[in-house]
Amino acid sequence: MSEEQAYGGQDVVEDYIARFSNWGRWGVEDELGAMNHVGPAQVAAAAQLVRQGKVLSMTLPYDLSGPQGGGFRANPLNLMTATGTDYMAGAQDPLPAGFGPAHGFGFADDVLVMPNQAGTQWDALAHIFWKGRLYNGFDASGVTSAGAQRCGIENHSRSFVMRGVLLDVARHKEVDSLEPGYAISADDLDATAAAQRVEVRAGDAVIVRTGLLEARRGQWGDYAGGPAPGLSLHVAPWLHEHNVAAVATDTWGCEVRPNEIELFQPLHVVALVHMGIPFGEIWDLQAIGEDCASDGVYEFLLSAAPLPITGAAGSPVNALAVK
Amino acid sequence: MSEEQAYGGQDVVEDYIARFSNWGRWGVEDELGAMNHVGPAQVAAAAQLVRQGKVLSMTLPYDLSGPQGGGFRANPLNLMTATGTDYMAGAQDPLPAGFGPAHGFGFADDVLVMPNQAGTQWDALAHIFWKGRLYNGFDASGVTSAGAQRCGIENHSRSFVMRGVLLDVARHKEVDSLEPGYAISADDLDATAAAQRVEVRAGDAVIVRTGLLEARRGQWGDYAGGPAPGLSLHVAPWLHEHNVAAVATDTWGCEVRPNEIELFQPLHVVALVHMGIPFGEIWDLQAIGEDCASDGVYEFLLSAAPLPITGAAGSPVNALAVK
Amino acid sequence: MSEEQAYGGQDVVEDYIARFSNWGRWGVEDELGAMNHVGPAQVAAAAQLVRQGKVLSMTLPYDLSGPQGGGFRANPLNLMTATGTDYMAGAQDPLPAGFGPAHGFGFADDVLVMPNQAGTQWDALAHIFWKGRLYNGFDASGVTSAGAQRCGIENHSRSFVMRGVLLDVARHKEVDSLEPGYAISADDLDATAAAQRVEVRAGDAVIVRTGLLEARRGQWGDYAGGPAPGLSLHVAPWLHEHNVAAVATDTWGCEVRPNEIELFQPLHVVALVHMGIPFGEIWDLQAIGEDCASDGVYEFLLSAAPLPITGAAGSPVNALAVK
Amino acid sequence: MSEEQAYGGQDVVEDYIARFSNWGRWGVEDELGAMNHVGPAQVAAAAQLVRQGKVLSMTLPYDLSGPQGGGFRANPLNLMTATGTDYMAGAQDPLPAGFGPAHGFGFADDVLVMPNQAGTQWDALAHIFWKGRLYNGFDASGVTSAGAQRCGIENHSRSFVMRGVLLDVARHKEVDSLEPGYAISADDLDATAAAQRVEVRAGDAVIVRTGLLEARRGQWGDYAGGPAPGLSLHVAPWLHEHNVAAVATDTWGCEVRPNEIELFQPLHVVALVHMGIPFGEIWDLQAIGEDCASDGVYEFLLSAAPLPITGAAGSPVNALAVK
Repeated sequence: MSEEQAYGGQDVVEDYIARFSNWGRWGVEDELGAMNHVGPAQVAAAAQLVRQGKVLSMTLPYDLSGPQGGGFRANPLNLMTATGTDYMAGAQDPLPAGFGPAHGFGFADDVLVMPNQAGTQWDALAHIFWKGRLYNGFDASGVTSAGAQRCGIENHSRSFVMRGVLLDVARHKEVDSLEPGYAISADDLDATAAAQRVEVRAGDAVIVRTGLLEARRGQWGDYAGGPAPGLSLHVAPWLHEHNVAAVATDTWGCEVRPNEIELFQPLHVVALVHMGIPFGEIWDLQAIGEDCASDGVYEFLLSAAPLPITGAAGSPVNALAVK
Repeated sequence: MSEEQAYGGQDVVEDYIARFSNWGRWGVEDELGAMNHVGPAQVAAAAQLVRQGKVLSMTLPYDLSGPQGGGFRANPLNLMTATGTDYMAGAQDPLPAGFGPAHGFGFADDVLVMPNQAGTQWDALAHIFWKGRLYNGFDASGVTSAGAQRCGIENHSRSFVMRGVLLDVARHKEVDSLEPGYAISADDLDATAAAQRVEVRAGDAVIVRTGLLEARRGQWGDYAGGPAPGLSLHVAPWLHEHNVAAVATDTWGCEVRPNEIELFQPLHVVALVHMGIPFGEIWDLQAIGEDCASDGVYEFLLSAAPLPITGAAGSPVNALAVK
Repeated sequence: MSEEQAYGGQDVVEDYIARFSNWGRWGVEDELGAMNHVGPAQVAAAAQLVRQGKVLSMTLPYDLSGPQGGGFRANPLNLMTATGTDYMAGAQDPLPAGFGPAHGFGFADDVLVMPNQAGTQWDALAHIFWKGRLYNGFDASGVTSAGAQRCGIENHSRSFVMRGVLLDVARHKEVDSLEPGYAISADDLDATAAAQRVEVRAGDAVIVRTGLLEARRGQWGDYAGGPAPGLSLHVAPWLHEHNVAAVATDTWGCEVRPNEIELFQPLHVVALVHMGIPFGEIWDLQAIGEDCASDGVYEFLLSAAPLPITGAAGSPVNALAVK
Repeated sequence: MSEEQAYGGQDVVEDYIARFSNWGRWGVEDELGAMNHVGPAQVAAAAQLVRQGKVLSMTLPYDLSGPQGGGFRANPLNLMTATGTDYMAGAQDPLPAGFGPAHGFGFADDVLVMPNQAGTQWDALAHIFWKGRLYNGFDASGVTSAGAQRCGIENHSRSFVMRGVLLDVARHKEVDSLEPGYAISADDLDATAAAQRVEVRAGDAVIVRTGLLEARRGQWGDYAGGPAPGLSLHVAPWLHEHNVAAVATDTWGCEVRPNEIELFQPLHVVALVHMGIPFGEIWDLQAIGEDCASDGVYEFLLSAAPLPITGAAGSPVNALAVK
C-alpha cells in the first residue's frame, strides 16, 4: 500500500467514514456487512411481494458478446469438452471413463473460464481496500493468491434474498440513458422513488437504472471502465439513513465516472469498505425497467445469491426479480 | 453416434419413452421442458411457503476441496489477478489502467476456471443425447464446440423459482447414507413423502437426499462417477404421474450406479431427454435435511436459477431453500 | 462438412493437389508430413551452420500485449497462484501442502491460459481439413473434443531442428512492410533468395518476412484475421519443387488475405493438408531480419520444437535461430 | 515474509551462500544468472556436438496423464474450440468470423490451460525467494499478481542452447531408480561422469537421471511433491566449481526429498536464488538415457528455450537433445 497522501476530497471521505462506518457494528468477526439489515422478518416480508408469479432476470448472458474488451477482465469463455458433433461422429462409443458401450447415449460437457466480475456480478466485501484494510478492519494482507481469508463472496452464500426496489432514474428523467459523468444525487433517488410511488426501507437492495447498459449493448465501447453516469459519492448519507443493505446498477462500477473527487471510486471506499454494502454491477435492467413501468410496481422479491466461490473477490450471479 | 444396438433393458426404456415423452407437448420450439409445469400460479404459491424468512444453501463451496479427482472435470480453480498482498506491497500505486494515484485505495480480482458440472449444478437439457437427438427432438449435431444451439442452460435463466420438496430417503430409512447401488423406488419416494407429511405436486422440484455426499465429504473417493445410491429408472412413471418439473440429489449423477440395465444413465434418457426434466446433481443436502427434520416442514421456496452461460451444457448454481 | 460446391479457383486447387499431394508418400500411417524431408543428414548439416554462437528468438512475448483482440483467440493470460507479495506479507509461512515452516523460503507459481495459436505458433497437421480429411487422408472425424487422434502437434515433438532460411521479401523490396493484399509469388521468393545469396534446399524451413508484424506491433488493429500480405496460392509448385519442409511468416495466416480465389486459405489446403507442410504464424522476424541484413547470412540452425500437447491443433513455440 | 528463524542446517546454507553467491557478478541489473557462463563460444562449440543428426525430446506429453494429482498444479488441459466433428456435422459452413462459405474447408483450434510447472519445465529465477529477495537481490515484492517484474522466464528466451551433459546416476549405480530420500553427492556426480567418460565444463547444463520418473510413469502416486531421490544440498560447491549454468532432473523438484536440513529445498536457495542456476524439473530422461548408454556419448547440443511468457515463474519446455 502506498503511503497516505492528501487529495482533493479527502475531508469529505473521512467525514463520511467517521459518521457512517459500520465497522464493529455487528461484531468484530462480522463478514456480512449491511446484509445484517436483512433478517428473517425482511426475507419473509420480501417473499410476500410475489403476487403475479412473474420471474425476470437482470443478468446479461455470459458469453463472448459481453462488455469486456479483452485483457485483464476478458469476456466469459465457455469451452466444450464433449459435444453432440463428437457423439454423432461416433467418438463417444464406447463412453469415456470406462462407462461402457453407448447404446445410443451421448453427452455434452464444458469448462467455464471467466473473470468473476466480467459480467453481471456482485462485489464481495473483500473486493476493495482502503488504507490497508477491508470491511470491518480486516487486514488486506489476508487477501492473497489463495483468495480472501476474510469477506470472500462465500460469506454471502445465503444472502440477497430480500426486497428489491428499482429506482429507474433514467425513466424518471425521461431519457434513454443518463449521460456519462452524471452524478446521481440523493435528491434524484428521492424524486425517483416518489414518482414511482415506492419507499426505500431498511434492508432493501436499491437497484438504480441509468440506461447506460441498454445504450451500449452490443457496441460496448468504453462501457467497462470509461465515463459513466452513476451514484454520487454524496449518496452515502442517504444509504446510511435508509439502512440500505445492497446496491446495484446497470453500469460497470456503480459510481459516477469520472469520480467527483480525486480518490478513485470513493463511494466504494465509504459504502462498501466502511458500511459493508455489497455492490452489484453490470446488471441488465432493461426488462425489469419495462416491467415496473408497465405495472407501476417497483418493488419485488430479489433472489440473487452469488456462487459460493471460496475466497473470491466477487461472483457472477443470475439476479432474479420475482413479482 | 454409434449404430443402435440391442442391450438388456431396451424394451423398458422404449416403453417409458413411448408413454412419457414430452416432445412436442409444449410446441416444437420448446426448450424449457418440464419447467413448463411451473407457471405464474406455481411461482406465486411457492413464494407463500416462506414463513420464517430462513435461507439455506444447498451448494457446496466451489474450491479445490470439491469432489472431483482431477482430469476431465477438475475442481473449481479461482485464480487471483489482484490481491491485498500486492496492494500492501505498493504494487497498486498508481492504479492500473490509467486510473491514477491510489491514495490508499486498492482492490482484489479473480478469474474462475471450472467445469460447469464440477460441483453443485444443473444439467441443461442439452447435456444428454439419445439416438442422435436431445430434448424435443433437436438434432445433437447442433451441440458443437461453439456450444448448444438448442436447450443450452441459458434457456432456464428464469427457471427454478418454484416449490421445492425434500424427500429425505436416508433419514426416513434411518441410515446416514443409502448404500451405493441402492435404487430408490417410487415406493420409497411415496413412503418418504407420507412419513414426512409432504405431498408432491405438479411443477415441483423433487430433491432427494441419499446421504452419500455427507458420508464422503472431504474423503470423496469415487464419489464422482463411482457406485452410488440413486433414483431407479423405474421412478419414471412416478415422475410423469406427478408432473415433476425438476429433480435433484446429493449424488454425482442422480441415478443409481451401477445402472439397473445395460444402458448408461437410463433415467437421464427417459426423464431428461424425453420428459425434459432438468437434473440437479452434487447438491449438499445436509443443512436442509437437518432443518426439515427439526421443523417437520419439507416444502419450501426453491430459488436456484443457473448462470445464463450461453450454449452451456450445465451450470453451477447456488441453490437456495427459503422457508 | 458441407457439401462440395463449385467456387472460383476450384480447378487450380484440384490441379495443385493432384500434382503435389504427399498423401501416402511416407506411408499410410505417416503423421510427420513434409518434415520427412529432414533426416539425420539435414539435422547434422543444419548444426554446422552455427558459427558465431549467436541465438535469436523469433517469438513474440506471450502476454496481454499480443495481437489478439479478445474472443475466440484471446491473448495469453498468465495467472499467478503464488506471489512475492504474498510471501512478503507472511502468507507462505508455514509453507503450503504440509511443507513446514518457511524459514525465509518463498516461491511464485502460475497458470497459463492461452489459445495455442494466439501468438507465435505452429499449426499442427490436424489444424486444417478439406473435404472431410486432414493430411494423409485421415478422417476429420477423428479430431474431437478430446483432441486430434491423428496429426496432433505431439507428432512433431522432435521436429523443427533444421536449416532455416530467411527470405526477407520486405527488405528486398525496400519497404517497411508489404501491403495487405500483396501476394508473394514464387518469383518474389526466387528474387529475394538470389539477392540475399541464399539457396533454398530440400528439407528447409522457409521463413518469409513481410514486415507486417513490425508495422502493427502494439497497434495491432486487424492484424489477426484481416487483410495481410502473404504467400500466394501459386507458390505451391515452388514449395513442391524445393521440397520445403516447413514455412513460417510474420503474419497471422501465412497466406495473402484476402485470398486470391474464393476458397478460404487455399494454400493451407494444398500445402498443409496435402503436402503436409506445417505453417508457422505470427513469427516476429524483426531481429532476425536485421541480423541477416547486417551479416549477409540468411541461413541458420532453426530450433523450434513445439510443446508436445497431446492431440493439439497447434502449439506456441519459442522459435530460435542459431547462427 | 516470516521473520528469520533458526533451523538445523542454517550455518551450512549461510556458508554456501557466502562462498558461492553470484549476486552482482554479472552486474546489478543481471537477470540471466548462471546462463552468463554460456557465451557465443559455448553455443558454437555445443553445436559441434551434433554428429549423427539425431533429435531426442526429454519432455513428457502435456495432457491429463501427467504427474499432477489435481489441485494447485493440475495436469495440462487442452480444450478444443473447433473440431473435426463440428466440421463434419456442417457446423463450420459458413466459416466463423465472416470468412465466408467453407467450400469444403474446415479447421480445429484449442485453448491450453496449464500450470507452467505442471510437467516438464524450467524454473525461472523469479520462482524462488529467500529472506525477501530473489536472484541478484531483487525484491520479492516485485513478483505480484501481474507477474515478475524481474527474473521472469522471458529473460531466458534465448537461453538453453548449450552443451548438455547427461549424468545417468541410476544407470551408473545399476538400479532402475534411486530410492526416494537418496541424496546424490558430488562424488556420485564425479563417479558417474568418470564412468561415462564425460567431462563437465563451464557453461554446461547438467542433466541428472535418477530413474524415478520411469519408475512412476502412469502410476504417479506422490511423485509430485513426495519423497524422491535428488541432488544433495552439498553439491553446491561442485556446481560452483564447475561453473554449471543449468541443472535438470527427472524428478519433481531436483533436490532430494525429504531435504537434508530443516530448510525446504535448500539447494534452490543456494543454487537458484544465489548462484542464479535455473532448474529443470520433471524431465523425461528415459530415451536420452538409453541412447547415451547405447552409443556411449553423454554430451549433446541441448536446445531447450522456454516460452517467453512475460513475468512467468516458469515455463513448459520441449527440451531437445541433439546428437
